[in-house]
Amino acid sequence: MPERADVNDELRLSRVRFVLVETSLSANIGAVARAMKTMGLTELVLVRPQQPLDAEALARAAGADDLLARARTCDSLAEALSGCRLVIGSSARARSLAWPEVDPVGCAEQLLREAAEGEVALLLGRERSGLTNDELSHCHLLTRIATNPDYSSLNIAAAAQVFAYELRRTTLHWQATGALQASGCMLASGAQRARLEEEAPLSAEAVRSDLATADEMVSFYGHLEQTLEQIGFADPAQSSTLRRRLRRLFNRARPDRTELNILRGILSAAAGRKRPDRFRR
Amino acid sequence: MPERADVNDELRLSRVRFVLVETSLSANIGAVARAMKTMGLTELVLVRPQQPLDAEALARAAGADDLLARARTCDSLAEALSGCRLVIGSSARARSLAWPEVDPVGCAEQLLREAAEGEVALLLGRERSGLTNDELSHCHLLTRIATNPDYSSLNIAAAAQVFAYELRRTTLHWQATGALQASGCMLASGAQRARLEEEAPLSAEAVRSDLATADEMVSFYGHLEQTLEQIGFADPAQSSTLRRRLRRLFNRARPDRTELNILRGILSAAAGRKRPDRFRR
Repeated sequence: MPERADVNDELRLSRVRFVLVETSLSANIGAVARAMKTMGLTELVLVRPQQPLDAEALARAAGADDLLARARTCDSLAEALSGCRLVIGSSARARSLAWPEVDPVGCAEQLLREAAEGEVALLLGRERSGLTNDELSHCHLLTRIATNPDYSSLNIAAAAQVFAYELRRTTLHWQATGALQASGCMLASGAQRARLEEEAPLSAEAVRSDLATADEMVSFYGHLEQTLEQIGFADPAQSSTLRRRLRRLFNRARPDRTELNILRGILSAAAGRKRPDRFRR
Repeated sequence: MPERADVNDELRLSRVRFVLVETSLSANIGAVARAMKTMGLTELVLVRPQQPLDAEALARAAGADDLLARARTCDSLAEALSGCRLVIGSSARARSLAWPEVDPVGCAEQLLREAAEGEVALLLGRERSGLTNDELSHCHLLTRIATNPDYSSLNIAAAAQVFAYELRRTTLHWQATGALQASGCMLASGAQRARLEEEAPLSAEAVRSDLATADEMVSFYGHLEQTLEQIGFADPAQSSTLRRRLRRLFNRARPDRTELNILRGILSAAAGRKRPDRFRR
């Protein structure tokens, strides 16, 4: 349910960016742009696309070339996610490390709820291999489209269409729900709705202001990993599993800026204990 | 709600045929086949396709070539719809003649409900001009995907993907509803129930086992606060605000036992830096 009725639907949708990571075929990028535009989405970000936005991309965009023209191209995922308060990664398969997962309906709801407060992102991986575990560690949630177990080969633009469709459908549904609530029809289900929202991976309560952005989290993780090395706990460069685990843990907590400052203060204090040794030499 | 529990999901989906009318591009037919197969649909019927099923169609089918191979080609729409008890036509725009219209969710529900009894069809028109009024007259209902009013140019395979996705999602949703009904916990009216269940994302707890217990968290907080004192960050006994903030942060993350062990390892490493000082004295 939208908490902020003052943020209109168009603004919400404009704050949902689709981030494509190392897409192989420019045709797919064009098709994603078209899928997005049909549903009123505008923000496309490309991380290291493997082909330039050529004639094939334009052909498949079919009138959504304005989205291609304004699409930002980035060298790193961190750069693409800069400023985002919520990042959801699309995954074709269930992951061994159990990440919190939502279906496309839940994905749309979480993105739109958080878009009332700021920028959010949906991450779509490579056509063949999806997202790496390292890329997933940027995500607060995963989302997966339920497919035929015998044939799960969803085209990236088809997946983008489903996610974009659910974003628009949810937006329209909230409009309708608002109308129903005004007429008192939804009152009976209020308790159930509350229960359902409590069970959501990111509850409605979790819509907090002043959350740390994706780039602030990247900077925090750098500090964390450096400190772990300094205090002799581990060399995170040599343990990508440890690094991912810690990122996933703190991503789940979704620290706000004050909390991040406290954590960084703790890291500095922990590392600072090294100084007396150094001065003594 | 399924009327006939004795008809299984696979059989239902196999009774939903997608009928493409005078499709211009074979590539689109291939892409529709792929979209269908990802969602467990198998029956594709082509009315006067404008291109043969060539290499382009096969390339876009990407492994759904079995659907193309078994696709029936017909000269007339009547032939393509033979044996169907329900026909729903997809329309890109609202029609002047007020046809009964359902959204894609309603479309999936109607098709699957009737598929318990026999064959049903979804009709997808030409890429540019859709279905003629004469063709629409074969339909019991129209369905329309709500699009951006400024850009409603949904690719035919993208539309097929949305309809196929809703068919599979509704199938899975009915399975879940059956379970909920058996437990007697759903009391809201049918329509509201459907909406509410749509809104319930998968619970994070459902996919994470081995969460730390409350007493393990208490023990961790003791360790954390002791360490903060040791590394000279703060005396948490004197700052209940800090203590509360940190507890709230880690409570939100809901660590499992492995994560808690990692965190405690880090605390020990941070505090351990004190030992050399102590030994030196």
